[in-house]
Amino acid sequence: MKCAILSVGTELLMGQVTDTNSVFLSYELNLLGIDVLYHYTVGDNDARLSEVLELAFTDCDLVITTGGLGPTEDDMTKETVARFMGDRLVLHEPTAEALHSIENNEHRKFTENTFRQAMMPSRAEVFDTDKGTAPGFALKDLSGEKIIISLPGPPEEMTRMYERRVKPYLKALQTHVIYYKVLRIFGLGEPKIETELLDLIDAQTDPTIATYAKPAECTVRIASKRPTLEEAKKAVDEVSAEVRKRIGEYIFSDDDEPLETVVGRKLIERNISISSAESCTGGKFADRLTSVPGISQVFERGIVTYTPRAKMEELGVHEETIEKYTVVSPEVCAEMAEGLAEKTGSDICLSVTGAAGPSRGDDGKPVGLIYIGARWRGSTYVRMIETHRKDREWNRNYAVISMLDLANLLLDGRDPKAYIDKTTPMW
Amino acid sequence: MKCAILSVGTELLMGQVTDTNSVFLSYELNLLGIDVLYHYTVGDNDARLSEVLELAFTDCDLVITTGGLGPTEDDMTKETVARFMGDRLVLHEPTAEALHSIENNEHRKFTENTFRQAMMPSRAEVFDTDKGTAPGFALKDLSGEKIIISLPGPPEEMTRMYERRVKPYLKALQTHVIYYKVLRIFGLGEPKIETELLDLIDAQTDPTIATYAKPAECTVRIASKRPTLEEAKKAVDEVSAEVRKRIGEYIFSDDDEPLETVVGRKLIERNISISSAESCTGGKFADRLTSVPGISQVFERGIVTYTPRAKMEELGVHEETIEKYTVVSPEVCAEMAEGLAEKTGSDICLSVTGAAGPSRGDDGKPVGLIYIGARWRGSTYVRMIETHRKDREWNRNYAVISMLDLANLLLDGRDPKAYIDKTTPMW
Repeated sequence: MKCAILSVGTELLMGQVTDTNSVFLSYELNLLGIDVLYHYTVGDNDARLSEVLELAFTDCDLVITTGGLGPTEDDMTKETVARFMGDRLVLHEPTAEALHSIENNEHRKFTENTFRQAMMPSRAEVFDTDKGTAPGFALKDLSGEKIIISLPGPPEEMTRMYERRVKPYLKALQTHVIYYKVLRIFGLGEPKIETELLDLIDAQTDPTIATYAKPAECTVRIASKRPTLEEAKKAVDEVSAEVRKRIGEYIFSDDDEPLETVVGRKLIERNISISSAESCTGGKFADRLTSVPGISQVFERGIVTYTPRAKMEELGVHEETIEKYTVVSPEVCAEMAEGLAEKTGSDICLSVTGAAGPSRGDDGKPVGLIYIGARWRGSTYVRMIETHRKDREWNRNYAVISMLDLANLLLDGRDPKAYIDKTTPMW
Repeated sequence: MKCAILSVGTELLMGQVTDTNSVFLSYELNLLGIDVLYHYTVGDNDARLSEVLELAFTDCDLVITTGGLGPTEDDMTKETVARFMGDRLVLHEPTAEALHSIENNEHRKFTENTFRQAMMPSRAEVFDTDKGTAPGFALKDLSGEKIIISLPGPPEEMTRMYERRVKPYLKALQTHVIYYKVLRIFGLGEPKIETELLDLIDAQTDPTIATYAKPAECTVRIASKRPTLEEAKKAVDEVSAEVRKRIGEYIFSDDDEPLETVVGRKLIERNISISSAESCTGGKFADRLTSVPGISQVFERGIVTYTPRAKMEELGVHEETIEKYTVVSPEVCAEMAEGLAEKTGSDICLSVTGAAGPSRGDDGKPVGLIYIGARWRGSTYVRMIETHRKDREWNRNYAVISMLDLANLLLDGRDPKAYIDKTTPMW
């Protein structure tokens, strides 16, 4: 199956918005074994949208559009798509009812144009939404050979609808089954991973092995396309086991889960309480960990101590320690974790202090120097990180993942000292 | 002048790489008054590239390509572009010399195919590079009516070449200038904004007015294209003043700045200290505010009190208050802000407590019920929010923006009571 992705929205052509929808869909469609031949972006313009559809179907059999399904005047994707496929818009009763019931339940009053969203091509398979108010749909042409799938533009609505409705729809069209695993890795850079797996990557036909770099972490995707799920799964599991043999200690998830989910689950399942004391990350660790539903059972407290005074008052860091070693030091990092443990009694207490940048701090410590600490079962661990980067958000993000990584290995009962020694810097 | 942007590279179609080049170029071209009608992405494939060029020139007079200028076999943009424009590749001596002199200066030996980069269309205006080794070029067809500009794919090479060589080239072709403002808005949904501005939107020719919804906020873009910058600016300022007259109280930036930047700047400029006490947002407020460089001058402390015990110990919330009203209550929210003020002495102390979801909390409060509090100049303010959403991240994000909004209006000296009464729910 060959596919084009068509993003609709004048704001994309103004350079105001980055088109992440096409990236997401390309990644997902490739996983299903669907070849993506084109991305197109056009404004909210009927004639140009039609032209591009025309071109796309010269060598594709599927076009997925995002955007232009909303309630306002300039949202015209549906009209254009319906006309292009020889269909017309009719009122889709279940959508109209859903909108009315939102009005009733939430005591809102929608404006008249909100109900434009309930107009759907008459032959469409409608994809209902549980985020936002715009449904999507799949529409075949009369011959049944061309399919257009239209999805809303806001990324969180689009990705949710894709997972719930579009992926099953597309899977049902496939003759082969794709099975894949996404291994997530921290502490090993992409070039190093490629080197470790080079013979596997060079020899690949099916399963395929692909590495991707994300900010501060990497993924390895192992995918197989076979007539049955069993065959595909067996092939993937074999390669996955070989990859684990080589770089297993850096893999934190076999299942494309973020590290906070992995750590959060272990904490909740084993009822281990956790608290955090943050300086340069400014609450980002607590934010990330508390994005995990149910974490309130184990997350006790997060303290963001930005000033030296706050570190002393909240965490009992000694003034002499700060004066002697500065706030960006292993000594202060250790005292932060220890003071937090004393105060909260939480099973794991994590701390972080560093110079996130962009400019050098008052105490002259280089930007990108960060200390991560932990108090756990009567021992204190501190790890030094030098990112050699000036990018504040990158440094903050890297520090948070490092904290999660430290918690993860403590929870796994691995020796943090050994691990720290072996860690390969990513830069 | 009408333009299409064409990104070349199979990796873009795999979902491995986000196309930031098109965003950058769109933004820059719009600033020059060049309308961007399309983005296209195709793989390294001669036939599909030609097809897309054909389509682009049906209504554009300029196509800018990025990618496919490198030394390897699959880089074929130049060959395709030259053939399409009725030209052929010849050795471009200055580029060959530049490559040789890099070899000499850096004691490197380039492989043979590196010199493919010195082959250029015979009629091209070549854009030399001072990053990387691939030059770019502009090529007109024989009639002089169509122009293709081809630039290298790596973003840092492309943006550098754009600034140095392409922008002056394009400026020389322009007769009009674009000027625009992006207003950012909180507290008023997109349909409501459209209703308020309907007559302006309906009457628009120049300046144009466009609204966009982002998570929990909206933007209005006002743009004008005139012979001179002065005329464009005057036209935009007039419309902008009219928009301000109607919905000014909801506009937090005229300059496309995020709310944390606006609030952070006011705090830093006026040296007003701030601390935060968070429950359901789990540190997201502190994280967001501390993303602003320089904020360490005024951000004193952030406390994430997830458990009742933490609220009592850290913030002095009374056990009876929790027992009587539960933790998700205006009373607890107020005590959190007051306790934080007492403890830290910060000028503004913000608090938040709520049920972020996805499932109902133990105390039976509905998901999406959130209280935002502030202690400021001896008074305590609490605002109730009901998002009617079950999406944990959405609720947390909305709560954080609401906290920033409350800080912003306190800093502006607006009466928070009046504001709270007047706020129109977005749902």
